[in-house]
Amino acid sequence: MTDFITMAHGNGGAAMQRLIRDYFVEAFDNPILAQGEDQARLPLADLATQGTQLSFSTDSFVIDPIFFPGGNIGKLAVCGTANDVAVCGAIPQFLSCGFILEEGLPLHELKQIIQSMAQTCREANIRVVTGDTKVVQKGAADKIFINTSGIGVIPNRLDWGVHQIRAGDHIIVSGTLGDHGATILNLRENLGIQTNLHSDCAVLTPLIDLLRPFTGVKAVRDATRGGVNAVLHEFAQAQRLGIRIEENALPIRQEVRGICELLGLEALNFANEGKLVIVAEPAQTEAILTALRRHPLGENAAVIGEVTPDGKVRSVGIFGQSRLLDLPTNEPLPRIC
Amino acid sequence: MTDFITMAHGNGGAAMQRLIRDYFVEAFDNPILAQGEDQARLPLADLATQGTQLSFSTDSFVIDPIFFPGGNIGKLAVCGTANDVAVCGAIPQFLSCGFILEEGLPLHELKQIIQSMAQTCREANIRVVTGDTKVVQKGAADKIFINTSGIGVIPNRLDWGVHQIRAGDHIIVSGTLGDHGATILNLRENLGIQTNLHSDCAVLTPLIDLLRPFTGVKAVRDATRGGVNAVLHEFAQAQRLGIRIEENALPIRQEVRGICELLGLEALNFANEGKLVIVAEPAQTEAILTALRRHPLGENAAVIGEVTPDGKVRSVGIFGQSRLLDLPTNEPLPRIC
Repeated sequence: MTDFITMAHGNGGAAMQRLIRDYFVEAFDNPILAQGEDQARLPLADLATQGTQLSFSTDSFVIDPIFFPGGNIGKLAVCGTANDVAVCGAIPQFLSCGFILEEGLPLHELKQIIQSMAQTCREANIRVVTGDTKVVQKGAADKIFINTSGIGVIPNRLDWGVHQIRAGDHIIVSGTLGDHGATILNLRENLGIQTNLHSDCAVLTPLIDLLRPFTGVKAVRDATRGGVNAVLHEFAQAQRLGIRIEENALPIRQEVRGICELLGLEALNFANEGKLVIVAEPAQTEAILTALRRHPLGENAAVIGEVTPDGKVRSVGIFGQSRLLDLPTNEPLPRIC
Repeated sequence: MTDFITMAHGNGGAAMQRLIRDYFVEAFDNPILAQGEDQARLPLADLATQGTQLSFSTDSFVIDPIFFPGGNIGKLAVCGTANDVAVCGAIPQFLSCGFILEEGLPLHELKQIIQSMAQTCREANIRVVTGDTKVVQKGAADKIFINTSGIGVIPNRLDWGVHQIRAGDHIIVSGTLGDHGATILNLRENLGIQTNLHSDCAVLTPLIDLLRPFTGVKAVRDATRGGVNAVLHEFAQAQRLGIRIEENALPIRQEVRGICELLGLEALNFANEGKLVIVAEPAQTEAILTALRRHPLGENAAVIGEVTPDGKVRSVGIFGQSRLLDLPTNEPLPRIC
């Protein structure tokens, strides 16, 4: 085998079979994948004992650069889809992976990416059960793109979703905001800021597990592309309600604040890859915060605002000045995930 | 909205929300997608009444060119994954779609692609229930890549798979071979051959439906990338058996034979996007052929050979001369799907 991806790795022939066997099947090893069929056969009867609804989600990952402090495109591809499956209260169990590889990609980089996917899956008890590999000529893609689709089961008594949101509900975030976006931006724009900043990319299943017993949880999202701001607008639009955020209450690291000021950008618009935005009944807010803070993934959890009846998404500063939070229309952060 | 995909269509902001609403949600319209959550919520209890195993498969599509006689990358993305879900006997029901769009892609081309995905889904009773859109800068991808992942249920009494294959079993193909590969090659290499040739790209659910009652069906695959040859090798390797093909029995169109001769390629290695390879008990071969031929998708079905005990994949010519069929090691047909 050469040291780089060649077009032969994508042609359905001998080189592709070796790549799949030696790289993918070896790393993701499990009995369902090992059946070697064109489709995974999942234990439907067993899943049906866990609830009456499946959670099914997909995401493609095109992040640039593919390696960054705190992770790489592979770890991100597992976390991103696992979290989308999980934010309705489901525990992600099965994942598919589709790889688009650019001719010339070093095989040792591919190996590193696959291994960190496999490790992230093991830690989160997720199995990669089916996959696909395509190769395109040099210049027709940028190194590697990964799609993952995930499956989990929603427990019967849970009905988290935007339809539950009411005026007066509190908005909670599970930790510091903008770490992933600021890390990638610092790296890519050669800002040269020396920091310990790293992507927060993580599978949030442990936090979902903590939230499941609380009847006061209304809706949960992970704040990825578009940041917390995009999630707030989705919440508000779905119910024609508003949201008021206290600027002072936002948990944002000093380094992230610094990068924001340097570039004139908002941390609220920065992508996170391991942060939940939770809408909760005020009566349970304190109990939810206490529970979240007991886990390392939630230690900086904070209430940042509340749902309002007025249809506007606003931020209120420390001196009481209020401004509308618009959705960004141009693109400050391409290929952040 | 501009007439082309811009980076703003991928940033999680207002332009992206409009694109998703006006292009994707409108075309794929169904109640599950319309919930507007980060994950589809599927009726697990209902699925569990249909069988005890889920079929789950994924494929990414990078075909070049994106429009071709008989279809486009969107139709292909629905057919390809639907067929991978179906070849274990499942009827594909739910699909996810992940789009990677190159900045500058004309929006009218995207619309055409989405509309033919939606039409193919409607005809096959498949629902697109969740999706994702990413945009990369001009030159970082080639126009459009699509990933689809699909879900169906395997009926309880079916256990199709390579583990069922025995020496003496017959090999059946559901129609003419190599149409898709030859169509793309003719188009892309500017061979200038005037033909009515078009891709055979189709959802094969109707043929799967016809095959389900036959207890003599052992294993089924759709012969895509790598062609029938790759499938034969997968069958043979899985059980350490051999396969003998009668060259004379292969249903291949005259135009496809012509393109093969011109380029010195084998139609057996050409991709199909609407053809099954079926391993069957000899006693049921005739009944299966009769059933397949009653449907337009199977009208050229033929027995092309049989499983042998000798571990070799061979082709026997009209004068009795036998040659080994190797898996291609270099890449004659990049980006065929």
